[in-house]
Amino acid sequence: MPVAPFPLSVHEISRRVRAGAAAPLAAARASLAAIDEMDSVIRAWSHVVGPDALEAPEEGTGGRLAGVPIGVKDVIDVAGMPTGFGVPALTGGAARFDACCVGMLRAAGAVPVGKTVTAEFAFRTPGATRNPHALDHTPGGSSSGSAAAVAAGMVPAALGTQTGGSMIRPAAFCGVVGFKPGFGQVFRDGMKLTCESLDTIGWYSNTVEDAQAIAQVLIADDGDDNRASDRPLTIAVQLGNPNAALCPESQREIARACEAWRAQGVRCESVEAAAETGLLLRAHDVIMHYEFARSLMPVVARHGDCLSPVLRRAVAHGLAIGAGEYREMLAVQASLRHAWGPRYGGADLILTPSTPGPAPRGLSHTGDGVFNKIWSVLGWPCLHLPTAFNQAGLPIGMQLVGNWGDDRRLLAMGRKLHHLLTQQGE
Amino acid sequence: MPVAPFPLSVHEISRRVRAGAAAPLAAARASLAAIDEMDSVIRAWSHVVGPDALEAPEEGTGGRLAGVPIGVKDVIDVAGMPTGFGVPALTGGAARFDACCVGMLRAAGAVPVGKTVTAEFAFRTPGATRNPHALDHTPGGSSSGSAAAVAAGMVPAALGTQTGGSMIRPAAFCGVVGFKPGFGQVFRDGMKLTCESLDTIGWYSNTVEDAQAIAQVLIADDGDDNRASDRPLTIAVQLGNPNAALCPESQREIARACEAWRAQGVRCESVEAAAETGLLLRAHDVIMHYEFARSLMPVVARHGDCLSPVLRRAVAHGLAIGAGEYREMLAVQASLRHAWGPRYGGADLILTPSTPGPAPRGLSHTGDGVFNKIWSVLGWPCLHLPTAFNQAGLPIGMQLVGNWGDDRRLLAMGRKLHHLLTQQGE
Repeated sequence: MPVAPFPLSVHEISRRVRAGAAAPLAAARASLAAIDEMDSVIRAWSHVVGPDALEAPEEGTGGRLAGVPIGVKDVIDVAGMPTGFGVPALTGGAARFDACCVGMLRAAGAVPVGKTVTAEFAFRTPGATRNPHALDHTPGGSSSGSAAAVAAGMVPAALGTQTGGSMIRPAAFCGVVGFKPGFGQVFRDGMKLTCESLDTIGWYSNTVEDAQAIAQVLIADDGDDNRASDRPLTIAVQLGNPNAALCPESQREIARACEAWRAQGVRCESVEAAAETGLLLRAHDVIMHYEFARSLMPVVARHGDCLSPVLRRAVAHGLAIGAGEYREMLAVQASLRHAWGPRYGGADLILTPSTPGPAPRGLSHTGDGVFNKIWSVLGWPCLHLPTAFNQAGLPIGMQLVGNWGDDRRLLAMGRKLHHLLTQQGE
Repeated sequence: MPVAPFPLSVHEISRRVRAGAAAPLAAARASLAAIDEMDSVIRAWSHVVGPDALEAPEEGTGGRLAGVPIGVKDVIDVAGMPTGFGVPALTGGAARFDACCVGMLRAAGAVPVGKTVTAEFAFRTPGATRNPHALDHTPGGSSSGSAAAVAAGMVPAALGTQTGGSMIRPAAFCGVVGFKPGFGQVFRDGMKLTCESLDTIGWYSNTVEDAQAIAQVLIADDGDDNRASDRPLTIAVQLGNPNAALCPESQREIARACEAWRAQGVRCESVEAAAETGLLLRAHDVIMHYEFARSLMPVVARHGDCLSPVLRRAVAHGLAIGAGEYREMLAVQASLRHAWGPRYGGADLILTPSTPGPAPRGLSHTGDGVFNKIWSVLGWPCLHLPTAFNQAGLPIGMQLVGNWGDDRRLLAMGRKLHHLLTQQGE
């Protein structure tokens, strides 16, 4: 099956609808047709609205996202659609209300067309989704369906979530732009909170411009996206990770990117892996398991038979973590979150791998999040840029990381850097 | 109707069940009988389980809260019970899962017996609940039913939430102990998040000991509750509030408390209202309305007819707040949250009014939260101590406030101070 992005960008769809050049539901109908055509193979969706149930955009056709069809990871409520958390046996009736983020997108004109497959409670056990670029390879997880749906061109954008590496890893494996905002930037009302100190809502799209269009709706900011354009960018290039090896083709791709950017006046300076890497990985592990266990304990108690042994073991493990260790790791998180300066003070952003390599073969695991957890626990915004394909046709790319609070600036810089690399004009 | 607390304390119920001296569901059955007897008058409950649907405590009968019946504010999910948010027309089917906090209480042995009346979406428009001490007076809001249910003796403890003054004000008006933990101390999975930067789960009980028993289950800590006992306590007494007057009987009651405590070696030192009071009230107003509007917007869009004009106006107001002003107020919150030292550095805790006075007459409003919002936006833990009744038979009392992170220590100090005041032994 040829893989092509949705034929129109977020920007172009909404521009046409606002100009009266396209019907408000035209793109949503095209999305449903694409899902109908492709999803028996890709399996990205757990629920799709019928063509007659599509809801016209609110606020007439004047919104910033007017007419833009979106997919929503199935741990986030959409009014009128069931929420299943990746566990078909637990899928309930229709949600009464949109999650806050869905309501904000809908108010800007977006049209939710369905719910996308998630790993079981956004944890480790994958759903049925396949990688559009290689059907016997994982799409990554836990936001598997959202990344695959955008990669396969079924929607131009979709919401996911990240607790460890659940946004960036699927973006890397499926070859789409993935943006995980900084912690706390997007309201979480209406999503299943499994780890309150880590859970973050993000989104997939085909371009950084499209990710920016969604950020302008979901992230409160003063709108000054171009602060970075006045002086040469400086990038801290951090390849190493004492806990993981980076595959040669990803190394070469990052080197190629740095070379291309340097030719345009960008400064790329290598930095070693932070001495705190091990501590941050431990903080992530402790905080995640402690909180996940307490959030999932009621589900295990009532519906343990419907859950995987992997999940049940994680809950048992988390319940055994002491409060003292948990609080110690929260203190590590709080203190290192604001420690950009000592290590990265001279840089505008960090360039680092998204994953150890392209999507591994097999659908029974979602890949390694070792390059993501550090940034998840710090709560810094992360942006995956898909930049090339390897010889096997699998997407490769890289991750940009911004400082605490620098979400919109990271997107602005990422847009410029992606353009320089893909030879498109600004 | 004579008003008396539930006949057994949280501690005593669980002790008896653990010792095999009482059946695991005995207290829950007594609770259902009391509800059956009283609630047609008090109207504290929006849903009550049938006697045959009571679920025996998990973990056998060994838990810290074994057999303790609890009420749960109807913005928090309890598996098998509907969640109505204070809007009967929107009440849905049974929740699939317990909220995280309910699951943690249940795992410790507690037995949820029903859902308690909340103001509409935990905002301003009250439900039907009456004040057990004076039926034509407000019980306060928004956690009206939980406070009234504990005050009337229908349960020994109940969960509420606070965004502005929704825990402490009902505690004051109903004359029960109310504890609002510090922001972030209790996981919020499974509650309706209307203001993600403010919403906090708390609880009501008859004694500070009982509040401690619940804190030991819900708040991760090292269990060192007695750090304050080694040296004389110092209390910063802050009566003034440039935005509200304190009634004379509340002033006299606080003076009486200080006198009693001084006689026992406690230092009570007056401080002026902080210069930042006005700024903090503005921060609370801006953050609350900005977030509430975005959380409730999807409900207004679909079910506006079911909602009060007050709520709809608040949503419209919040949607009009600019992102710049909102972020500025979040920065105020973040910086003042850690500014205990400059103003209160010499004190262990703050003593301040809970409300301008006792419960006002009338059921159409829930009273003034002006003495609560400052602490809600700071996210500091607050404890209401009921200490007396006025000549009309209405409860009066006072609020203790602790520093960021000092939740368990505040409870330990509050327990000691409450004992000194009520002449009970430690």
